[in-house]
Amino acid sequence: MTQPITAELAETITKLVLEELSKVGLAPSGEPQKYVLVGISARHVHVNRAHLDVLFGQGYELSKFKDISQPGQFAANEQVTLIGPKGKIEKVRILGPLRKDTQTEVAPSDARRLGVNPPVSQSGVHHGTPGITLVGPKGTVVIDQGCIIAERHIHMTLADAEAFGVWNGQKVQVKIGGSRGGLMDEVMIRVRDDFALDMHIDTDDGNAFGLKTGDIVEIIKS
Amino acid sequence: MTQPITAELAETITKLVLEELSKVGLAPSGEPQKYVLVGISARHVHVNRAHLDVLFGQGYELSKFKDISQPGQFAANEQVTLIGPKGKIEKVRILGPLRKDTQTEVAPSDARRLGVNPPVSQSGVHHGTPGITLVGPKGTVVIDQGCIIAERHIHMTLADAEAFGVWNGQKVQVKIGGSRGGLMDEVMIRVRDDFALDMHIDTDDGNAFGLKTGDIVEIIKS
Repeated sequence: MTQPITAELAETITKLVLEELSKVGLAPSGEPQKYVLVGISARHVHVNRAHLDVLFGQGYELSKFKDISQPGQFAANEQVTLIGPKGKIEKVRILGPLRKDTQTEVAPSDARRLGVNPPVSQSGVHHGTPGITLVGPKGTVVIDQGCIIAERHIHMTLADAEAFGVWNGQKVQVKIGGSRGGLMDEVMIRVRDDFALDMHIDTDDGNAFGLKTGDIVEIIKS
Repeated sequence: MTQPITAELAETITKLVLEELSKVGLAPSGEPQKYVLVGISARHVHVNRAHLDVLFGQGYELSKFKDISQPGQFAANEQVTLIGPKGKIEKVRILGPLRKDTQTEVAPSDARRLGVNPPVSQSGVHHGTPGITLVGPKGTVVIDQGCIIAERHIHMTLADAEAFGVWNGQKVQVKIGGSRGGLMDEVMIRVRDDFALDMHIDTDDGNAFGLKTGDIVEIIKS
């Protein structure tokens, strides 16, 4: 049976074509971009100079295991053990370079294993977050705050933000297809000119939504 | 021309039927219900008679650890080890009573640990699912299918289904609030008159959405 091309059908076809073009970065100007790549962040640690000295020895320098998606940042070869009131997790990788404040980023399932109850927090915002114990080959550090569940977020440059029609600090939703699909709320847009376009979620979100690094998801502005 | 029964069509029919029932006083008055309690299902195993014989010994009977939300079903004291190509998980609880077919229900993160790639599947539907090895105190069973990631689902009675304005086999969405909130798609309504009203999700979904057993979520009919 042939079907007459109704206005609705034409609109649907147009929409599909534009979506496909947008996926390969060819969206006509006017149409905002809406697709981003996902990167799954495993639990990790950022450390400051003083704590690295205690954990790995005075003056120790991190060595690069591999580059990660954000320019200048890297996964280090160095790993620590996290210890909480109820359990410990070994081989938690340090991300470099060094930061001003030590911070541990864990998934909710990790927090349960450790016995800590960190809030969902933006990286660097430690007010009201619990502490935790880090153990390295040379020593132990007990921080009294800085253990967070990282907020779902999307890194982008100002040019990206314009192309997507979003702004720094905006919360968007992200749509995921498939049999474990759905909609993630409370996804923070983070704009900085040295950011690479990338959505960061933790392993629990990755597992729940059936996502892996490199998958493409759609930004929804509600 | 016959027309396939789409979700839209089914919804329209349901709506019309409910309206007609309402005219003769047989529909719940007022607004449909929309809130359900969540139950988080940890990884577990259902076994059949023959496999229990191998795992725990000829004629062995499961003993009750505790009742679970669905009437007549229980968590048993008996536990097995699951072994996949890449790893094993110990102390996986058996749920009773015995079933016709042995089935293991794991979360996506468990599947990764084991090195299996099960599809999201309805309980009892094993076509195309991978096998796995179960180890008990008396013996080992290798099943060639029956390892699934359980489909997100909501149990209810027919009376509940009427009150919610949904039907058996309908896929709904479920809305979750909070800083890890969002929308779960592909949530199957399962109606049977001995079902207790309860939404079942696995631990990965529970962790990702910040849900625990007893939390209340909202059904959305899209």
